[in-house]
Amino acid sequence: MKMKKVGIVGASGYSGEELVRLLLHHPHVELSAVTSRQNAGQTLAQVFPKFANHPRARELRFSEPKVEVLSKQADIVFLALPHGVAAEYAVPLMQAGCIVIDLSADFRVKSAEVYKEFYAHDHPAPDLLGKSVYGLPEVYREQIKKATLIASPGCYPTSILLPLIPLLKAGIIKHTGIIADSLSGVSGAGRKAELDYLFVECNESVRPYGVPKHRHLSEIEQELSVAASAPVTIQFTPHLIPVNRGILTTLYVAPEKHFSNETEMKELGEKISTCYKQVYGNEPFVRLLEGKALPDTKNVVGTNVCEIAWRLDARTGRLIVMSAEDNLVKGASGQAVQSMNILCGFPEIAGLV
Amino acid sequence: MKMKKVGIVGASGYSGEELVRLLLHHPHVELSAVTSRQNAGQTLAQVFPKFANHPRARELRFSEPKVEVLSKQADIVFLALPHGVAAEYAVPLMQAGCIVIDLSADFRVKSAEVYKEFYAHDHPAPDLLGKSVYGLPEVYREQIKKATLIASPGCYPTSILLPLIPLLKAGIIKHTGIIADSLSGVSGAGRKAELDYLFVECNESVRPYGVPKHRHLSEIEQELSVAASAPVTIQFTPHLIPVNRGILTTLYVAPEKHFSNETEMKELGEKISTCYKQVYGNEPFVRLLEGKALPDTKNVVGTNVCEIAWRLDARTGRLIVMSAEDNLVKGASGQAVQSMNILCGFPEIAGLV
Amino acid sequence: MKMKKVGIVGASGYSGEELVRLLLHHPHVELSAVTSRQNAGQTLAQVFPKFANHPRARELRFSEPKVEVLSKQADIVFLALPHGVAAEYAVPLMQAGCIVIDLSADFRVKSAEVYKEFYAHDHPAPDLLGKSVYGLPEVYREQIKKATLIASPGCYPTSILLPLIPLLKAGIIKHTGIIADSLSGVSGAGRKAELDYLFVECNESVRPYGVPKHRHLSEIEQELSVAASAPVTIQFTPHLIPVNRGILTTLYVAPEKHFSNETEMKELGEKISTCYKQVYGNEPFVRLLEGKALPDTKNVVGTNVCEIAWRLDARTGRLIVMSAEDNLVKGASGQAVQSMNILCGFPEIAGLV
Amino acid sequence: MKMKKVGIVGASGYSGEELVRLLLHHPHVELSAVTSRQNAGQTLAQVFPKFANHPRARELRFSEPKVEVLSKQADIVFLALPHGVAAEYAVPLMQAGCIVIDLSADFRVKSAEVYKEFYAHDHPAPDLLGKSVYGLPEVYREQIKKATLIASPGCYPTSILLPLIPLLKAGIIKHTGIIADSLSGVSGAGRKAELDYLFVECNESVRPYGVPKHRHLSEIEQELSVAASAPVTIQFTPHLIPVNRGILTTLYVAPEKHFSNETEMKELGEKISTCYKQVYGNEPFVRLLEGKALPDTKNVVGTNVCEIAWRLDARTGRLIVMSAEDNLVKGASGQAVQSMNILCGFPEIAGLV
Repeated sequence: MKMKKVGIVGASGYSGEELVRLLLHHPHVELSAVTSRQNAGQTLAQVFPKFANHPRARELRFSEPKVEVLSKQADIVFLALPHGVAAEYAVPLMQAGCIVIDLSADFRVKSAEVYKEFYAHDHPAPDLLGKSVYGLPEVYREQIKKATLIASPGCYPTSILLPLIPLLKAGIIKHTGIIADSLSGVSGAGRKAELDYLFVECNESVRPYGVPKHRHLSEIEQELSVAASAPVTIQFTPHLIPVNRGILTTLYVAPEKHFSNETEMKELGEKISTCYKQVYGNEPFVRLLEGKALPDTKNVVGTNVCEIAWRLDARTGRLIVMSAEDNLVKGASGQAVQSMNILCGFPEIAGLV
Repeated sequence: MKMKKVGIVGASGYSGEELVRLLLHHPHVELSAVTSRQNAGQTLAQVFPKFANHPRARELRFSEPKVEVLSKQADIVFLALPHGVAAEYAVPLMQAGCIVIDLSADFRVKSAEVYKEFYAHDHPAPDLLGKSVYGLPEVYREQIKKATLIASPGCYPTSILLPLIPLLKAGIIKHTGIIADSLSGVSGAGRKAELDYLFVECNESVRPYGVPKHRHLSEIEQELSVAASAPVTIQFTPHLIPVNRGILTTLYVAPEKHFSNETEMKELGEKISTCYKQVYGNEPFVRLLEGKALPDTKNVVGTNVCEIAWRLDARTGRLIVMSAEDNLVKGASGQAVQSMNILCGFPEIAGLV
Repeated sequence: MKMKKVGIVGASGYSGEELVRLLLHHPHVELSAVTSRQNAGQTLAQVFPKFANHPRARELRFSEPKVEVLSKQADIVFLALPHGVAAEYAVPLMQAGCIVIDLSADFRVKSAEVYKEFYAHDHPAPDLLGKSVYGLPEVYREQIKKATLIASPGCYPTSILLPLIPLLKAGIIKHTGIIADSLSGVSGAGRKAELDYLFVECNESVRPYGVPKHRHLSEIEQELSVAASAPVTIQFTPHLIPVNRGILTTLYVAPEKHFSNETEMKELGEKISTCYKQVYGNEPFVRLLEGKALPDTKNVVGTNVCEIAWRLDARTGRLIVMSAEDNLVKGASGQAVQSMNILCGFPEIAGLV
Repeated sequence: MKMKKVGIVGASGYSGEELVRLLLHHPHVELSAVTSRQNAGQTLAQVFPKFANHPRARELRFSEPKVEVLSKQADIVFLALPHGVAAEYAVPLMQAGCIVIDLSADFRVKSAEVYKEFYAHDHPAPDLLGKSVYGLPEVYREQIKKATLIASPGCYPTSILLPLIPLLKAGIIKHTGIIADSLSGVSGAGRKAELDYLFVECNESVRPYGVPKHRHLSEIEQELSVAASAPVTIQFTPHLIPVNRGILTTLYVAPEKHFSNETEMKELGEKISTCYKQVYGNEPFVRLLEGKALPDTKNVVGTNVCEIAWRLDARTGRLIVMSAEDNLVKGASGQAVQSMNILCGFPEIAGLV
């Protein structure tokens, strides 16, 4: 298999660092460029001592992010940048022939108006919105194969979409009244020197934030609407939890079919179970929990796996679905690498196990 | 004010230890007895070095729990025991003339059948169910004044009942479709040598448990039903979070009155705000957050305060209410001391600030 | 007892916040001024929601730090400022008749040259060095009574000086070859928006820093030299540990008298034990551990207590002394309040239990 | 390269689990047996959900530990058992022709008397002490190649021996007066249901333990004595720190050659630097830090790397050496796999990067 050359723009944040980790050890790519304004000139090994035993990390130096240089160094460029900034690089990189895998929110939302509503500024490159593929491999694998611009999904969206999309598509649950309650590790806030994310402010603290209109709602509702073939509006509450990594999402949904006795509950349960097995039974990165097991972030941290479990509640008539993922891997960099693997024709799990 | 003599049965668990802390420093009581099978014979200072600078902790020794001795040593006895066991002590202690403040679930549920449904054994003292007062001072202050048996509420119930009861009583929210999503620190599991609660199993882990039918639902629904004057069934999902103390609860409820524009939302918001201020404006241990503030467990840990904030969501038509408390203080021992203060005619905040 | 009016300059950092907590609840003082450039105009309750249930916190507003205003509002002013800055306030405040209790390093070191060597700038007010009293009550209680300028000790120094000074004064240990290995919680780094102290950078991390010449060495060696009546140079290594609060120090020292058998070891042990009991037996804030107990930061967090335990090692001939304290209480704000109590003739434990 | 079949006795503890992780993904071995009394009959996937996406984990079941079965299933058997128990399996497994890699302390100490002194019971198989090789690859690589019984070093010993042995062998430091101060994550205590290791007891706690005579001293001093060609006695203090994994050791040693000025310090520094580079410059799992970098456990967790940095202190004439490792990888299971690689002629880094 021909090696691809890959670059990372914004490689000093948490998802950038995680991309470095994954791509340094990937069997089919060579990490050929990493950029970072504040670390330009230093080697990967100097900035991230934990990679120092990798020979490539001792020679590859951070550079200033310059499109004309990058486009020669790399076939594929990952953008690990804040929203709004990513688009500035995506446009010229694509013009220069690079494939772009964007981890920001810039190309996830298909509508420039929705983007503006949620991100409070005009979309910087509305023409590209039609070209981008939402990089959720379990849903858009075929489209990813032919993509030139991949909008890799956010961490919260992944934890919500993977459990819900099969049920909506199969008509098992109602598309109204959905509630998503999510708990995120602190790396989700990025490597930013802000008081709110100091150790002492986060340790021994649990708190909701961004209630009730978090930006990720735009892409979540867009994708749920596609799955439901109807406009979906959901309730979403994120919370900050004192762990480095991991998202745990608890979803409250209403089954289409009312169940009022043991038999009906068992029937519905089998329908849900079958649906998930058909859709995810062969997916390498979705783990359907069985028996009494419930998701636990510690079982997915460091991996590209999303765990899913569900329970029917005879008392309330509701279905509760729970998921766990590593926000930096399946919720960001691992998923982006998974898309790259599909796009390049590599084994989908290459560099991810 | 006459000093009361107080005893604690089961003083070596987490809520027992917290009772020790509060009662050692309480201005109107003398801690005259602490029991613990495994620590019998040792002083409080030996078992809990952190109390060793208190003279009483250096002289008071743990004893075996014997009712005939306890009833002579103490006017008021706190029971910090597992459910089922507490009742065994409550009955003879009351016969011997003691006032009993029970931190277990034994006397919270008024119906012996409901108790059996949720706790999987017959109620050990059904005759006393009619006598007990549910020790939530903000709701049952008058009844507590005359009580001889107080069933102090659980930690999850407190975090759910305080935010919801005023809204249900005022008819502002529907009593159907309520969802409570709660996050609890590990001390909520008690001081038990079980693998699940080892540091390594809880640190860097976030997980739901007891889905969908947690025992605390029995008392939560009982009290919500009283407030709503109608039978209430709710959805409740507890999660274990790597902090020592604290519960954060996020509640999803539907306002009785639909709101579809800014004006209606503002009107409803004022109604909610007024309701909370009328009910809790003078409560010493409820803090209504204002402006952009949201509850954070770190702001209540170590105190008897429950923080409450709320938001209306114009997109979904829902009301989200969030609360934070210290599970061992307002969720257990502090609340029990608050009830004692009321019952004894002490200032309600004595020993709690 | 006449109430004193007290002010805090720099009340928004961690030790400032802890001073607020202690002084709000102190029975003999009124907190009359708090300053903070970034929070000026806001109430204490707004900046620190956890104090919001205290009436004073709802009315007292942060102000810009102005000496002419402060000197009228307060009899005693606490300075919780960075070194170098503190002196700028101390001089005019003292001229205006205030008593100053400085939590910075500015007046701890008696020699302006030593100050310059360790802090890399000229001392801003060398004339005051002779006036200041090193505010370690267990050592300088008499001098504190008459002080007008108290230099409250640092967190590491307190954890090292309290265990060593009695042994040096009694000639039980050698003043050469002393090693202090200290572990500190992250609040010791202050409330500063720096990447190094982000949750994700500190959690699941243990690291030494400032090796081998930490600034606190200047005051540590000064005070050990006084105790030993000889110049003392020590080895000191601080480490950053993922806890909010607490310092644990392990000291390696050589007894003056060699011990080579059980009898000699027992004799020496009794000498040490007697020495500590004589010096600290009646101290309210030093806890000498007995039996098998070893210091644990969780037993001192939130209190003004320093725990001490020691062991003789027959294999190496060394004495190991271990101490634990809360870096923000006995290591900073609690100790400052203790000094204030002594200076004002209040009970020494007022507001500290 | 021919695949080897490997088994793990005691695969449900923390180092057993880590062996499972490493061996499941090792390119040259097949994990053919895992034993655990309490989990017998369950698959690896059921007991450790995080391995469930690996096909082998879904089929391999825990069995009762039976030597006659194991010896047919595996060429190499790892023992992850408590000391004393390990020897019971080692003897018959070796007789049956298996190579044994023991992670317990049973075969690390060469003297049965020293073993008894430190472990308080007679050595269970003294005849084998002469056969075992101390599995520290950086020191005993040649011996490991021909070993049939490897005594894999403890976590604390590895963090102390790797930094000190080169300096002792080169005669750069004195072999007297050495002090090792170590900080360990809680997984070092094993997966045991004991109150001391509950989340609430360890979180927000820092504490020394086992002072002054920890069992690991026996192997540490044995190996240091070999390196120094003289009997070495050291001071060692372990501390428990609230992280899951990681050991940070700070070593205080005296250079053989006194240095009293800049030039002498520079000369000595170059000697130390050269020594470390010669010994470890090509070692895949030792990382010599440069410039201002100091060890940090977060940079080694999950890897088989031991980080080393050092500083000379002109004020005290001492050398301070600091090391960091993952107690479960380089301190246990990774090191055992490294030894296996050497013994089997696999690339030394196979399965470890």
